Amino acid sequence: MDLRSPLTSFLPKRLLLGPGPSNVAPSVLAAMASPLVSHLDPFFLKIMEEVQQMLRKVFQTSHEMTFPASGTGSAGMEFCFTNLIEPGDEVLICVNGLFGERMVDMASRLGAIVRRIEAPWGQPIDPTELESVLRERPFKLVAVVHAETSTGVRNPVETIGRLVHENGALFLVDTVTSLGGMEVNLDAWGVDAAFSGTQKCLSCPPGLAPVSLSPRAVEVAQNRKHPCPSWYLDLFLLRAYWGKERAYHHTAPVSSIYGLHEALRLVLEEGLPARWERHKQAHLRLCQGLEELGLEFASEKGHRLWQLNAVKVPEGVDEANVRKVLLERFGIEIGAGLGPLRGKIWRIGLMGENARISVVERLLEALGEILHKQS
Amino acid sequence: MDLRSPLTSFLPKRLLLGPGPSNVAPSVLAAMASPLVSHLDPFFLKIMEEVQQMLRKVFQTSHEMTFPASGTGSAGMEFCFTNLIEPGDEVLICVNGLFGERMVDMASRLGAIVRRIEAPWGQPIDPTELESVLRERPFKLVAVVHAETSTGVRNPVETIGRLVHENGALFLVDTVTSLGGMEVNLDAWGVDAAFSGTQKCLSCPPGLAPVSLSPRAVEVAQNRKHPCPSWYLDLFLLRAYWGKERAYHHTAPVSSIYGLHEALRLVLEEGLPARWERHKQAHLRLCQGLEELGLEFASEKGHRLWQLNAVKVPEGVDEANVRKVLLERFGIEIGAGLGPLRGKIWRIGLMGENARISVVERLLEALGEILHKQS
Repeated sequence: MDLRSPLTSFLPKRLLLGPGPSNVAPSVLAAMASPLVSHLDPFFLKIMEEVQQMLRKVFQTSHEMTFPASGTGSAGMEFCFTNLIEPGDEVLICVNGLFGERMVDMASRLGAIVRRIEAPWGQPIDPTELESVLRERPFKLVAVVHAETSTGVRNPVETIGRLVHENGALFLVDTVTSLGGMEVNLDAWGVDAAFSGTQKCLSCPPGLAPVSLSPRAVEVAQNRKHPCPSWYLDLFLLRAYWGKERAYHHTAPVSSIYGLHEALRLVLEEGLPARWERHKQAHLRLCQGLEELGLEFASEKGHRLWQLNAVKVPEGVDEANVRKVLLERFGIEIGAGLGPLRGKIWRIGLMGENARISVVERLLEALGEILHKQS
Repeated sequence: MDLRSPLTSFLPKRLLLGPGPSNVAPSVLAAMASPLVSHLDPFFLKIMEEVQQMLRKVFQTSHEMTFPASGTGSAGMEFCFTNLIEPGDEVLICVNGLFGERMVDMASRLGAIVRRIEAPWGQPIDPTELESVLRERPFKLVAVVHAETSTGVRNPVETIGRLVHENGALFLVDTVTSLGGMEVNLDAWGVDAAFSGTQKCLSCPPGLAPVSLSPRAVEVAQNRKHPCPSWYLDLFLLRAYWGKERAYHHTAPVSSIYGLHEALRLVLEEGLPARWERHKQAHLRLCQGLEELGLEFASEKGHRLWQLNAVKVPEGVDEANVRKVLLERFGIEIGAGLGPLRGKIWRIGLMGENARISVVERLLEALGEILHKQS
């Protein structure tokens, strides 16, 4: 490699319509490039406080324990499990895609006894089936993915939340792909533990994991028999750092928190309902265009996400080549299928900054041109 | 808070002479603000490969398993312990400051039987004492902090490494504050596991943890009896992601990796020996200036770090007020003491971009003015 040229001199420009990261606003990039201050600077402490306030608004929660963990979205998942789960705990996990599987993996490593409830990839979890499992015995925790990025399916989180609370279990929700792109209301839904990522509908670079724990979840962690195996993600060390004490723990990723501050400011300036509506309209325009191209959805009607669209690859089309041409000739990224859907679907993300009619039309035009040539 | 103004409109400018973060080069900030690509983009895969190559050069190692973990320096510490330690393992940890204590905490949470060898804060670990402990029995792992940020002391890592290998234990070294500011040579010193941070002598924003594991360490992890409790930091999942497979694990923090790419490029463009010499010269200029001001070091002569200078607060001086005036009137941050040294020392960091005579002279002038007024 050539040590003489900075990276910035040869960067490609991409329209990111995959499963994330999405493109971010220029002011978010500018915030990322702001001169550093110390993570203990009075100015930075104020920024930390404001980020927490804004995150509570976006999550629609009064949970005091709401902050961005210093890792990517999956670190947020691990934060929730590693603090709440101990060896021998009975846990029920809803699995209808890759991220449900990931939760099973994390809980199992921590020694939980995991019971799965499943739906085929592309279909939502059935609350009736869940209800009958929940009647069998009490669980410590029930976990579900709100917006399954691997399949484009929305799970019925509000209904599930009611059933979980009747069981007395803690309710854990993955909001990585939902937060900022569709309604998320932790308090109304009785969510005890939630985590998210920054690089999807919040339109911020990846690197932080917004998390939120209810007072009940914090109490459960407080009454653990075994110590939390993670020092880095230990809830109480992090509470002392992000709370009023400001006790030194790790060095916060200052630039990423600047970026998140600006991204959250933009979300709230736009207003949550307006932002959700924008995601919905972009999705509807995509639906119309896909139909005109003769393309079909791979996710069940009525349960489709606006921000992540799983589209069947037509018979006889080389799916990888379509993605390659889109990227190389049009500078547009869309995602491939994962797991059992590998080679069978494309995943089209319309997230945050990219949830716009003009963006959808740019994609449809390129896609039309490529598919037309292939057929 | 005011939702109308972006963060960038009211950011303070600071000269960061505390324990880190240090200031970063303009081209590193520019890299952080580069438009995003997907973490699976062919271009980004090339960047990942180059970052790994450059990290190997900076660590002076041929370890294939060398990459930046997606968390801050402490996540790097946790990566090493959580992959290498299982319940019941016998571990020897050198403790002569806060970061040695942190390693004890991490190893204990993972169920290790921890034996400590200590030196007072401000003094190095005594290899003779270590040698006699190592003669007692075999250990699975011995850990030491190379550059103790809490005390400004350099531990004799090269000598310790020889003793550890005679014992047959794995050798783990914290290089958070040393990497890029003084010699670090993993291969010559027989280091099996090392971690670092980006925000010290590499002069990059905080958020990533460069780590390196020897083939022997990888083999030990491969033969674990219990699964690694962490999914996020699991060595084998990360190897599949950073290695040739490029199997999706988490979404890499693209912007931070851009920043690190540029920071490492600058380190190698300067050259390691030249960079170390620059840190030494800045330290020597500081020593001279502190002596002229009648100030004394809190760390033992002959074992002082160039990049982190622990200075005794003179009798009768309000240490917090000196830091406050330095920050508010001169825009300069220096660090406070931690643990038993709280209120007794200042910690002056001359790291990366800030290891320059002109920077030292700016600090000395400000410090002289403040102390002169107080006395």
